[in-house]
Amino acid sequence: MAGPEIERLIQFLARLPGLGPRSARRAALILLKRRDQLLAPLAAAMLDAAAKVKTCAVCGNYDSVDPCAICADDRRDPSVICVVEDVASLWAMERSGLFRGRYHVLGGVLSALDGIGPDDLAVDHLVARAGSNAVVEIILALAATVDGQTTAHYLVDRLAGCQVAVSGLAQGVPVGGELDYLDDGTIGAALRARRPIA
Amino acid sequence: MAGPEIERLIQFLARLPGLGPRSARRAALILLKRRDQLLAPLAAAMLDAAAKVKTCAVCGNYDSVDPCAICADDRRDPSVICVVEDVASLWAMERSGLFRGRYHVLGGVLSALDGIGPDDLAVDHLVARAGSNAVVEIILALAATVDGQTTAHYLVDRLAGCQVAVSGLAQGVPVGGELDYLDDGTIGAALRARRPIA
Repeated sequence: MAGPEIERLIQFLARLPGLGPRSARRAALILLKRRDQLLAPLAAAMLDAAAKVKTCAVCGNYDSVDPCAICADDRRDPSVICVVEDVASLWAMERSGLFRGRYHVLGGVLSALDGIGPDDLAVDHLVARAGSNAVVEIILALAATVDGQTTAHYLVDRLAGCQVAVSGLAQGVPVGGELDYLDDGTIGAALRARRPIA
Repeated sequence: MAGPEIERLIQFLARLPGLGPRSARRAALILLKRRDQLLAPLAAAMLDAAAKVKTCAVCGNYDSVDPCAICADDRRDPSVICVVEDVASLWAMERSGLFRGRYHVLGGVLSALDGIGPDDLAVDHLVARAGSNAVVEIILALAATVDGQTTAHYLVDRLAGCQVAVSGLAQGVPVGGELDYLDDGTIGAALRARRPIA
């Protein structure tokens, strides 16, 4: 239908999350149409990112500096470490703007189905960090899924020997959530964790 | 939140159709995670496409050769030209696999709202091609929208002086379409264009 260059471009675009074969075709056409304004700068941004972005050796975040800007920021509390599944979760936490400590990216969650065990995650590194005297609390900000909570329980066991408090995100009704649309598990969790209203 | 390289990558990705800010972030993370398998080859495919893909001087299709593979294909009938709005429509026609003539990409449709007039489209070039003795029929394969049909009427007027038959795509019930879900306009068009059943 089109030349091999276009076909290859579409194939690679279709491997991005959120782009199926149809939208990959549309994206390829937009790129070819706006060659100077979009195609060339996007390719340049990709090569730039490929060359400069590193994984932070301390926390596992992506940044152009190592240690990353968060680990290097003196104003952030080094005594609290928030454990997240991946960099996407780290960015989501940062967007909330409420957490002022440091992070630890696990690189996934335990999953028997996907064959992901403790050795595939940055668990030993987390235990080593938790063993430092500077660390007081570890917050497990993992997904409220079976795998996420299995991982949280495993981490609680592994961190038992360290002199740190281990906490998890609260479960309950999301902001804006209407009871009628919530699943039974969420309502049950919110009920069990009910708080006195002052 | 992340380094400037990542932010810029996300910004450009978000300008692709089908990718909002959220999915652009996800795409950027997947790209950074799969640097060798996806980020580098996609950037290479983009640069390759930017360097090699040309607009066919005859029909307006994208290809790495000019004239494009369709215009250069001797087995395709040069006496029938199918007029399409853009390359996406041309690809859609090709996917149907039923048309064996040549194409003409208009580069858009007339739109008073968007300020697109005849001079912004490849109309003069179409009239010149239609004036060739080799051309017998022009098929207007334009969208069944107000702008598409306005453009079709305009082209019929402009092609009046040429010795060619001008036709348009049939309107009616789409394959798999249930009457209950069709709009009144489509049902009306299908009724007016009803055919005797042999």
